[in-house]
Amino acid sequence: MTDTFGRMWAELLPVGRSASSGGYRRFAWNSADAECRSWFEEQARARGLAYELDRNGNQWAWLGDPQAGGAVVTGSHLDSVPDGGAYDGPLGVVSAFAALDELRERGAEFDRPLAIVNFGDEEGARFGVACIGSRLTAGVLSKEQAYALRDADGVRLPDAMERAGYDPAAIGADQERLARVGAYVELHVEQGRYLTEEHPVGVASAIWPHGRWRFDFHGEANHAGTTRIEDRRDPMLTFAETVLAARTRAQLAGALATFGKVAVEPNGTNAIASLIRGWLDSRAADEPTLTALVEEIRQAAYESGERTGIKVELTRESYTPVVDFDGPLRDRLAGRLGGVPVLPTGAGHDAGILASAIPTAMLFVRNPSGVSHSPAEHAEERDCLAGVAALADVLEDLACLQR
Amino acid sequence: MTDTFGRMWAELLPVGRSASSGGYRRFAWNSADAECRSWFEEQARARGLAYELDRNGNQWAWLGDPQAGGAVVTGSHLDSVPDGGAYDGPLGVVSAFAALDELRERGAEFDRPLAIVNFGDEEGARFGVACIGSRLTAGVLSKEQAYALRDADGVRLPDAMERAGYDPAAIGADQERLARVGAYVELHVEQGRYLTEEHPVGVASAIWPHGRWRFDFHGEANHAGTTRIEDRRDPMLTFAETVLAARTRAQLAGALATFGKVAVEPNGTNAIASLIRGWLDSRAADEPTLTALVEEIRQAAYESGERTGIKVELTRESYTPVVDFDGPLRDRLAGRLGGVPVLPTGAGHDAGILASAIPTAMLFVRNPSGVSHSPAEHAEERDCLAGVAALADVLEDLACLQR
Repeated sequence: MTDTFGRMWAELLPVGRSASSGGYRRFAWNSADAECRSWFEEQARARGLAYELDRNGNQWAWLGDPQAGGAVVTGSHLDSVPDGGAYDGPLGVVSAFAALDELRERGAEFDRPLAIVNFGDEEGARFGVACIGSRLTAGVLSKEQAYALRDADGVRLPDAMERAGYDPAAIGADQERLARVGAYVELHVEQGRYLTEEHPVGVASAIWPHGRWRFDFHGEANHAGTTRIEDRRDPMLTFAETVLAARTRAQLAGALATFGKVAVEPNGTNAIASLIRGWLDSRAADEPTLTALVEEIRQAAYESGERTGIKVELTRESYTPVVDFDGPLRDRLAGRLGGVPVLPTGAGHDAGILASAIPTAMLFVRNPSGVSHSPAEHAEERDCLAGVAALADVLEDLACLQR
Repeated sequence: MTDTFGRMWAELLPVGRSASSGGYRRFAWNSADAECRSWFEEQARARGLAYELDRNGNQWAWLGDPQAGGAVVTGSHLDSVPDGGAYDGPLGVVSAFAALDELRERGAEFDRPLAIVNFGDEEGARFGVACIGSRLTAGVLSKEQAYALRDADGVRLPDAMERAGYDPAAIGADQERLARVGAYVELHVEQGRYLTEEHPVGVASAIWPHGRWRFDFHGEANHAGTTRIEDRRDPMLTFAETVLAARTRAQLAGALATFGKVAVEPNGTNAIASLIRGWLDSRAADEPTLTALVEEIRQAAYESGERTGIKVELTRESYTPVVDFDGPLRDRLAGRLGGVPVLPTGAGHDAGILASAIPTAMLFVRNPSGVSHSPAEHAEERDCLAGVAALADVLEDLACLQR
């Protein structure tokens, strides 16, 4: 198992990696994404698995008859955020193949079909919507909505698919496919540092509700060198007060609130800004807390704006309710793995999207620094191998004859 | 006079104007700039003035013998900041031609050469350095420095000149030309609202010392949805505290400090920023005040960064010392115009660059809202005509036989 994991990891490591940042730029339908997809197909064929591309661009590798029903599916995604790390996504796919290798070494006999999956465009780096492959499959993103998406260069999603050699005509809900799946288990590097050296693998309890809100702060463009302070309507000040208020309120609520994206107009050194857009990412353990937190931040922004003549507009760009993973499946995993931590996560995943349609569960592998969505993201090899062993145990429990 | 001013104003009004913003996009050597330059040349020829293009791309229109020495020069610039207003620059050039028309109507007899000038690339919108035409002429920007400048698309300044049909080979200090000039008087729309309906025209006393400083706030990229607050190193918070500190400190110092330009990396909605660059524009009535103010803002940024693990780096990108306009010339203008306000300005001008080489002065025309560097910049026509009359009076005093 060590061998196959290490070999697969080494094969993927250079694909789509930026020499300057050391981070990954594997975005939906770009050339790095295509290399990852070729790699997936090779892994499937090398193991004698039936390779299948679904209507939404997700890749499947089947052991046993896909039509038999009740399949146990595992996998994750191979794309990345801009300058993301090596583990977010690929660890789940590589671990899936390695776990299958491990089960074969153990001589396990399968009594259900098993599939390994690579969901397309999980990070949403190119078209601004996360989990496009699983959203389409589950029918929570319609074909029309997907067709309306454009990347930063104005390329439409179906055109991007087509240029990459894929047929976008048939994208959309795929209930028939979901009906074949009995359980989906996704392994993922932890994006935080709850797990410990003693307990490098955990089971997910839930995904926090989360959303994106855009704050538009409307001021008045003016000359930075001549406009008296009392004549200014400078939205940068309102933005700054809102950033600080968001942090304070989040801390008090035991939740998260982040401004990580900003756009300034006209963005000139000697011009007072006319408009600042700041995007708030906020998450909390439950929906009432999240709703109250965002309302408090909105209130702080409006009050700050009123004092200084800045009009503040708030737009909710996306919202994902709390996802509680399937209780029986979660308990079965935790029971099989014996005393592992059960923890919630603030990050969205394909498993969260699919949870509304089929029983899903997640395993997390320890991340010593907790760093994620960054070139500095890291997991120790021994923890990754513990993850593979745990995934093999879980798959054996779910899909194999019990000895 | 009303007629020629209004006609010229109407001709220039549509040139380089954005239909979407209503602001101007007349940048060095672009097509709108070329149209403005053609217009200038036509105005010169229509009045029988000798048209001349100098080595640095500045346009001159001469009445009388340029070689005679002691010339009285007036004018301004025709380029704009991104989405700038109609008045900043063009008002000075149009008023110069209109003042000449007025003097001819008055039957004034010139006893010195008079020139009207359009300085190139005053706003620095394209290559990031303001007053390139006058800086080159005065020798405060070298040919080598100018050749090293690139625009946002990577086009080098000499290549941009060449593409526009100008020869960049001979750019550089032009002492011989400056030696011909006895006085330069620039009329400009006020960029503030000191002037009143009773006193719509003023004389400049000085240009405040000013500069640009870049603050780099180095944090750690991380997942916005999963990183615990205590594990974050989020530079957005340090930036926000610095923005607010800058405003407070500037207010206490009776000075100006503005963050109007920001760049965020990676600038993703669900990513804690790894790096925020914020550009500070700061100005004060005197250099000790400005130095102390920037030091206080630096101190506030460093202290905020130390509390939260953010490394702060400060780079001074440009600095212009105080410019005191020529005392005797200023007093002569104020005397001729009789009891007009004498006021400092926070904005840089070609007149400020040239002040180190030749006697220069400025007239300001009332700006009711004080708005500048914005499509909303405005001056009333009657105030503009008062400006033309005042400029004619001043030119008559300086360049004509006294009757």
